[in-house]
Amino acid sequence: MTYLAKNQEYAIYSLSFNYGQRHKYELNAAKKLAYRIGAAKHLVLNIELDKIGGSALTDNIDVPKTDKKPEHNNEIPVTYVPARNTIFLSYALAWAEVVGASHIFIGVNALDYSGYPDCRPEYIKAYEKMARLATKTGVEGTTKIKIVTPLINLTKAEIIKKGIALGIDYSLTHSCYDPSIDGKACGLCESCVLRKKGFLEAGVKDPTIYE
Amino acid sequence: MTYLAKNQEYAIYSLSFNYGQRHKYELNAAKKLAYRIGAAKHLVLNIELDKIGGSALTDNIDVPKTDKKPEHNNEIPVTYVPARNTIFLSYALAWAEVVGASHIFIGVNALDYSGYPDCRPEYIKAYEKMARLATKTGVEGTTKIKIVTPLINLTKAEIIKKGIALGIDYSLTHSCYDPSIDGKACGLCESCVLRKKGFLEAGVKDPTIYE
Repeated sequence: MTYLAKNQEYAIYSLSFNYGQRHKYELNAAKKLAYRIGAAKHLVLNIELDKIGGSALTDNIDVPKTDKKPEHNNEIPVTYVPARNTIFLSYALAWAEVVGASHIFIGVNALDYSGYPDCRPEYIKAYEKMARLATKTGVEGTTKIKIVTPLINLTKAEIIKKGIALGIDYSLTHSCYDPSIDGKACGLCESCVLRKKGFLEAGVKDPTIYE
Repeated sequence: MTYLAKNQEYAIYSLSFNYGQRHKYELNAAKKLAYRIGAAKHLVLNIELDKIGGSALTDNIDVPKTDKKPEHNNEIPVTYVPARNTIFLSYALAWAEVVGASHIFIGVNALDYSGYPDCRPEYIKAYEKMARLATKTGVEGTTKIKIVTPLINLTKAEIIKKGIALGIDYSLTHSCYDPSIDGKACGLCESCVLRKKGFLEAGVKDPTIYE
């Protein structure tokens, strides 16, 4: 998604969060990608969501493992982190105000993760409306904050193909919810299963290193 | 404001933020008050807003000092912290989801601080609308999150009188933006000036210890 923004000639201010997630390894991946893409600045914030808990990603709850595409039957999976995207977007909003940015990109996807409330288009729309009232520019009526979600309606396969066309080195990226300490993917969590399926359907070789 | 919630017989889950503010002393005050009121739980989160900066409260910018009521002429003061209330409310939203709370109280005030975009009723309304879509209960259509702002349209004097009626010990509270290391108020920042004026107009003795 950062590559999409870069391709549209935005200056990149990339933001990562150490929120107490099991898969802290993703912070290394994000740092490498920010460097590779030539981000104007990359910021990592420590934000202690594990003190709030309530998710298999931040709390003492097992990450479900399967080798099939997860079926949620409209139930929200235990990997959902309460209000996480709202918190992420709110930090991005603060930083956007400080650096004078008007476009906030977020890689939410409503297809494969339809169980997550904060990945839905109606949520993003409501967030944007709130964000336009929340900051200085909202009072002054100048810049209108835009929340940009280029991946929201794509399948994983479509996302992977788009990335390949933009020259992404997927061996630098990380999706696993429960990796080994040296960053090897478990291959069995929901996120791994969807990633594998995406590569398969896109007809692209999966460069992920699995345990 | 916490006393108002307690008076309405809510169980209190109180939330304080160490966000890199100059007036970290307020965290001691909040802790004492939470204990005094018998909060079910009091949580202090470290949230690193100083890495984002852009405010006299978190960055290397002087806090303006005066002995008169500040006149902003519609300009937003340098003590405004970008998107701070949006970030605070988002953590509260996450915690509300985990503990199953439906009411989030926030002590914003639109009268004396009319310069702050994230203290205005239209902002709060938009936040509430977004919050109802952001979490599990929003998808399930069960609990409707309510953002409660009992102080939003009161003057400081009215707030102080309300507090006295509820039995608040104001010597435990803290408002100063730029206190000494042992918590003495500067008496000259915007927050001190408005607090002093409030006590004066309410006809209540000000128990604040000034430098």
